[in-house]
Amino acid sequence: MEKRIRNAALARKVVSAHEAASYISDGMTVGMSGFTGSGYPKAVPIALAEQIAAAHAKGDPFKIRVLTGASTGPELDGELAKVNGMSYRTPFNTDPTCRNHINSGETDFIDIGLGQVAQYAEQGVLGDMDVAVIEVSAINEDGTLVPSSSVGNNKTWLEQAKKVIIEVSHWQSIDLDGIHDIYYDYGSPPSRGPIPLSKAGDIIGRPYLECDPSKIVAVVESDHPDRNAPFKAPDEGAKHIAGYVLDFLQHEVKKGRLPPSLLPLQSGVGNVANAVLAGMLDAPFEGMTAFTEVIQDGMLDLLDNGKLSVASATAFSLSPEAAERINDNMARYRGRLILRPQEISNHVGLIRRLGCIAMNSLIECDIFGAVNSTHVMGSRMMNGIGGSGDFARNAYISIFVTPSTAKDGKISSIVPHASHVDHMAQDNDILVTEQGLADLRGLSPRQRAKSIIANCVHPDYKPLLEDYYERALKSSYGLQSPMILNEALSFHQRFVETGSMLPG
Amino acid sequence: MEKRIRNAALARKVVSAHEAASYISDGMTVGMSGFTGSGYPKAVPIALAEQIAAAHAKGDPFKIRVLTGASTGPELDGELAKVNGMSYRTPFNTDPTCRNHINSGETDFIDIGLGQVAQYAEQGVLGDMDVAVIEVSAINEDGTLVPSSSVGNNKTWLEQAKKVIIEVSHWQSIDLDGIHDIYYDYGSPPSRGPIPLSKAGDIIGRPYLECDPSKIVAVVESDHPDRNAPFKAPDEGAKHIAGYVLDFLQHEVKKGRLPPSLLPLQSGVGNVANAVLAGMLDAPFEGMTAFTEVIQDGMLDLLDNGKLSVASATAFSLSPEAAERINDNMARYRGRLILRPQEISNHVGLIRRLGCIAMNSLIECDIFGAVNSTHVMGSRMMNGIGGSGDFARNAYISIFVTPSTAKDGKISSIVPHASHVDHMAQDNDILVTEQGLADLRGLSPRQRAKSIIANCVHPDYKPLLEDYYERALKSSYGLQSPMILNEALSFHQRFVETGSMLPG
Repeated sequence: MEKRIRNAALARKVVSAHEAASYISDGMTVGMSGFTGSGYPKAVPIALAEQIAAAHAKGDPFKIRVLTGASTGPELDGELAKVNGMSYRTPFNTDPTCRNHINSGETDFIDIGLGQVAQYAEQGVLGDMDVAVIEVSAINEDGTLVPSSSVGNNKTWLEQAKKVIIEVSHWQSIDLDGIHDIYYDYGSPPSRGPIPLSKAGDIIGRPYLECDPSKIVAVVESDHPDRNAPFKAPDEGAKHIAGYVLDFLQHEVKKGRLPPSLLPLQSGVGNVANAVLAGMLDAPFEGMTAFTEVIQDGMLDLLDNGKLSVASATAFSLSPEAAERINDNMARYRGRLILRPQEISNHVGLIRRLGCIAMNSLIECDIFGAVNSTHVMGSRMMNGIGGSGDFARNAYISIFVTPSTAKDGKISSIVPHASHVDHMAQDNDILVTEQGLADLRGLSPRQRAKSIIANCVHPDYKPLLEDYYERALKSSYGLQSPMILNEALSFHQRFVETGSMLPG
Repeated sequence: MEKRIRNAALARKVVSAHEAASYISDGMTVGMSGFTGSGYPKAVPIALAEQIAAAHAKGDPFKIRVLTGASTGPELDGELAKVNGMSYRTPFNTDPTCRNHINSGETDFIDIGLGQVAQYAEQGVLGDMDVAVIEVSAINEDGTLVPSSSVGNNKTWLEQAKKVIIEVSHWQSIDLDGIHDIYYDYGSPPSRGPIPLSKAGDIIGRPYLECDPSKIVAVVESDHPDRNAPFKAPDEGAKHIAGYVLDFLQHEVKKGRLPPSLLPLQSGVGNVANAVLAGMLDAPFEGMTAFTEVIQDGMLDLLDNGKLSVASATAFSLSPEAAERINDNMARYRGRLILRPQEISNHVGLIRRLGCIAMNSLIECDIFGAVNSTHVMGSRMMNGIGGSGDFARNAYISIFVTPSTAKDGKISSIVPHASHVDHMAQDNDILVTEQGLADLRGLSPRQRAKSIIANCVHPDYKPLLEDYYERALKSSYGLQSPMILNEALSFHQRFVETGSMLPG
């Protein structure tokens, strides 16, 4: 096994996970690494959860405030949630136990756009950070840190925390060295200059994280794999959606509104995103780039076949097979795969500058295109807004993709009125379901409603929405965005009462 | 009268407003100058409205699609609306007749964040621009154009339009020469570099607008004043709100979270904004700057007394007295007052880079802080989102200010659920009413609701909202953002039915 702790002073700080975890106590604010199941600490949170459980068994209070990059894995959010160890969680979560605590009111969940977390932390409004626990793939001789499979908010946590615990992962590829680009010149207002990035592949920082060695109280070695979810092949609906998206992009190229290499792609994760990326393998776009949040299997395939020349992100989000493939060949991707702090990967100014093509999914949207990305039935948190707000608002073209129904047709993804709004209608340029595509750019709300109902709604719900909209046109208080106040949320009410948005 | 048309070739193109207007015909897309009642053409739209009325009298169709910077004045939106001459209007309107047409469904209104209009136009999704009608304060010998009291989208309209009509205003100060900074190196993706602006006062472009002279089909002279609305002295409520805002800013300085010169200010217009700016005359902040959308009276006062060192915007929005004062002394403000294209004054990347302190008003917000800036009772358009989205999302601190009630107490500005959402709750850091201030940063939705109800709601509505929220905590589908679906819009329903949100 190659030596990963190359700094002598830090090598002397190697302790057990339990000893490291003992630096964390009740009420503390803890910044952890981790983004989309990649690069989160594993050994220390498991040990910490045991210590929390032990305290609770004795009747002692022990809950901490947990800040990460984005979602983590079962060893972190899962274990800490199982022992009810988190009073506060930000900015994103996909763990089911943690989600239950959030929605039962046990855990305060602060849903923040992923590009903005670092700035809030630096402002001091997320609490003083007591401890940071950061997974790295190696410690260099000079004490600098080679990040692992995500960068996330690690730079900020290392700067903000009073004490730091480093978890060195032997599972991560030793060749991650050189994949990262940590920008250290961002600064704080009023002393911020332009970020010197004009192409997705520009290198603007250093390959290593820095940390004041006097703050590092413990180093732990671990060998846990990341939470890499199995790849799900796209279903028929996803393939239809992908087809519409690819046709649209080709149309825009033909019209001269997009270059043949497109513009830097951002893609959310999931079934539909996979289908679009898979479709791009055969589409006539060459020399593409990606400026996105995560690298998923499809991006890797596009890099491998040369369609994609470079991909910039803050984390990997891979299947176990793809993770193995990339770990075995990481050196090959140097210069073509770049992981940056999420404050840079998701920077509003860079997204606007580069003119990204954003593709994000949603929970529901209304007939005008306003998008709910987070709250099921308006109140129940799914995962969080993630980076969708950073990208959708600032993209050159913002595409939202969704199956037209969910839960075996019992939920329509298109509703009279969104029960919660994360993206105003104007941030939704192109809406695509397996039924079709609505190009909403330059349309008024009434024109949008017509286009969405005609092109995107499932046939089971089309008559309901047509009827609602026709009546809204007659009775609405104003006709800019016609609405029937006491029916606007009736689809949701019916679902909560009967288990289906369809009338019985 | 000083000579304003100094280019010989263009001097030969001087025609009457009626002759110029005759270049515009039914169905055309027309880009006009104008932002917040400043710098819009007057003579040509008046003549055009007469031609439209004449066509309608003969039974001929004549409606045009009108794109501007933001709001204009009675000579443009007013006259064109009175003759029902607009089929399509974007991106912002404050004219009452035009508003009626929008809300009756006569006119399609496309509400776009003001910083994004130019990019949409360049994408070609707002329609091919047939004619641009641009007010300027002078034409230079070399044919370059000295903008007038707003820059808005003029650069883009001059580039996009097939034909151009220039309206030279003799009312505008001849000394506007040198006040403008037109950035010509923004480019389009994928060829955009960083905008080289690090301070509100940086000059990055040229003082003049350029236009291919072969496109200029007519030059018209006019002498109409801008629509400058009388200054309304702040009322008691506004003064209370201003007091809370100023206390908060002083507190942040004391905590070391803001420098003593604060960060570049953005301020919306209106009574409360005036009160805050007036309060800053006596507040202990020195060497302030403004990076904002419009320069209103209060900004001018702060510049005059030296508290504000420089103010960057895209337009003036002044009282007649302040307009006179500035017109008589414009040369004094050179270098301290800068008018830029709205794509730059409202650029998301610059707002984030500079770390603006944003202060915007609202129509209503919900108990979690989600803001409705545009739609009365969810459906009736007021003015449009304006620049609030550009600033609130990207500011270092986003403050929303509002009286706690409207319409003599018959409307609560804080409701269980916003009937329309323009700014998600996370874009609202600080909510201030005359009742008090809620610092929402770092809070979960449940914590936000508690703070907003406790600090900001009017006493008449507090028991109603407390009762709603308590019951929502018991019955909501999920507890992330507790909600009672069939009561969420009940305040609005009651207002529409009874004329008051208060139960009878």
